[in-house]
Amino acid sequence: MSAPLVWINGEAGGSLSPLDRGLHFGDGLFETIACLGGRPRFLGLHLKRLSLGCARLGLPAPGLERLSAAIKNAAAPLERAIVKLLVTRGPALQRGYAWGEEQGTWLVIRYPWPQEDPALARSGVRVRTAATRLGENPALAGLKHCNRLEQILARNEDRSNEADEALMLSHSGNLVSGTMTNVFLVSGPPQAPRLSTPEVAQCGVAGIMRRVVLREAVREGIPASESVLHPVDLDGASEVFLTNARIGIWPVRSIDGRALAVGPVTRRLQERLEPLLGAAGADG
Amino acid sequence: MSAPLVWINGEAGGSLSPLDRGLHFGDGLFETIACLGGRPRFLGLHLKRLSLGCARLGLPAPGLERLSAAIKNAAAPLERAIVKLLVTRGPALQRGYAWGEEQGTWLVIRYPWPQEDPALARSGVRVRTAATRLGENPALAGLKHCNRLEQILARNEDRSNEADEALMLSHSGNLVSGTMTNVFLVSGPPQAPRLSTPEVAQCGVAGIMRRVVLREAVREGIPASESVLHPVDLDGASEVFLTNARIGIWPVRSIDGRALAVGPVTRRLQERLEPLLGAAGADG
Repeated sequence: MSAPLVWINGEAGGSLSPLDRGLHFGDGLFETIACLGGRPRFLGLHLKRLSLGCARLGLPAPGLERLSAAIKNAAAPLERAIVKLLVTRGPALQRGYAWGEEQGTWLVIRYPWPQEDPALARSGVRVRTAATRLGENPALAGLKHCNRLEQILARNEDRSNEADEALMLSHSGNLVSGTMTNVFLVSGPPQAPRLSTPEVAQCGVAGIMRRVVLREAVREGIPASESVLHPVDLDGASEVFLTNARIGIWPVRSIDGRALAVGPVTRRLQERLEPLLGAAGADG
Repeated sequence: MSAPLVWINGEAGGSLSPLDRGLHFGDGLFETIACLGGRPRFLGLHLKRLSLGCARLGLPAPGLERLSAAIKNAAAPLERAIVKLLVTRGPALQRGYAWGEEQGTWLVIRYPWPQEDPALARSGVRVRTAATRLGENPALAGLKHCNRLEQILARNEDRSNEADEALMLSHSGNLVSGTMTNVFLVSGPPQAPRLSTPEVAQCGVAGIMRRVVLREAVREGIPASESVLHPVDLDGASEVFLTNARIGIWPVRSIDGRALAVGPVTRRLQERLEPLLGAAGADG
C-alpha cells in the first residue's frame, strides 16, 4: 500500500504521544469514510454517529466543523480515497482507567482506494461463519469503537482468503454481522419481499450503509426491520447481502460453501443506491 | 503525575507510528509490573503471561531476553516504580482487520510509584458494584489485552471516587473481578476457611497476583479454587479481598455500603505475601 497521509489534531504529520489512551486501551472511536470526486460520502451521517459515540463514551468531542473541514480537505485532491477519522481520549494524564481532563486526539488518515475485483459487487462474495464470536455489551453495542480484537481474530481465523468476509455470531449464538460489514436477509414471497438485519443492541456496529439501506428499502416499498436473527434464518433467506460505507452492497453468493443466488431484491437496492454512492452522491 | 519515561522498541523516546494497530484497534497486550529496590517483581510470571497472550492473539512476540533486559534497565535507577510493558501488532501494512507481516511495536514506560493512602492495605477499601458489565468471549478471556473500554466505563460510572474500586459482573451476571483487580472470597468455618476466586474462562484477566495468591494460599494450608461465582456469593463470604500486581492484597471493608470485617484469613495471606512483595521479593 502506498503510504497513507496523516494529520494529527489538524496538522500534517504531527506526532502521537506514546501515552495516548487510544494506544493503551483502544479508548476511542473511528469512522471510515468513502470519498469520491474529491468529496466525503455521507459525511453528515458519519459525524453524527461519531458525536453520539463520544457522548456515550464520555470522550472529549472535537469540534465538528473543524473535523468536517479537515476531512473535506483530505478528500479534495483525489478522485477516490478512503479517509479514516480516529478520535481518542488523548494522552493520559494519569495511569489507569480513570479519565481526567484529557485533551482528545483526532487523526485524519487518507488511504488510497483499495484495488478490488469489481466482480464482487456483481457476482457476489463468498462468506464463511467465523468461530470467534462477539461478546455482548449494550454499553458498547452499535459504536464503531477501537476495541476490535474480536473482529481481528475472526478475520484472521482463515488466512487462505477463500472467503471474502466472515459472518459473526454473538456469544449467545445470534447472527450479528460480518467482521467489517452489516448483513441483510431477504425473505417472504417474490411479490412481497421483506428485508431484515440484526439489531445491534447487544453487539455489532450500527453501520452507515446499513442505515442508508434501511431507509432506501422503505422508500423502494420494501418493508425493512432490525430484529433478533439466528444463523438458521440464513437458510430461510432467499437472498443475503452485506453492506459497508465503502462497498455499498455486496451480494452473497455462498455461505460456508452453500450456494446462494444473487436475487432481484439485492439488484433493486443496488440500483437504487447507485446515484447515492457515485461521485455526485448526496450527503444523506 | 511527573512525566513517565518511554522506550519504544528499545530506544529512549522513539516515535510511534500513527498507523500502529494498537492505536487503531487495541491490537495488543500489556503488563503492569511493580518494581521495588530497582528490580521488577514477578518478571518471569509477567513475561510468561505475555508470551501466552501473543500466541493466542497471533501477535509477533518480541524476544523475551530483550524485553527482560529493557524492563530491568528501566527499573534499576529507582527505589520504587511501575513499569508498563505494551506490545502491539505494530504499524499496519494495510487497512482493515487482516494482519500481514507486521513488525510488532513494544513500549516500556516507567511511571512513578503512585502516592497512595497506606491505610488501604490495613483498613481495607470501599467497593461498589459497577453497572457496566463484561462481555463474554473465551477467545479473549484471561488476557491482559488492550481492549479496555468496558473497564474504563465501569471505572468512570461514579466520578465521586467514594469507592476505591468497582466490582464487575459478566453479561450473564456472574461475578468476575474489579476493574483493575481480581477478587477473592473467603468462606467456610473459621477453623477451615476456603478461598475462591472467579474463573476467567469467559471474561476477566488472569492476574499475576491472583496466581501468586492461589499458590500461596495452598502452601498456607488454605484450599483455594477458581470457580463460577455469583454476586450472592459475596453476601455469604466472611471476608473479601482484591489483588493486583502492584497492591498485593487489599481487604474489602464495604461493598455497596454494606460493611465487611477485615478478617484473619486476609491478614494471614497478607503476611505470607509480605516477603514476596518487598524489595527482596523472589521472582516467582
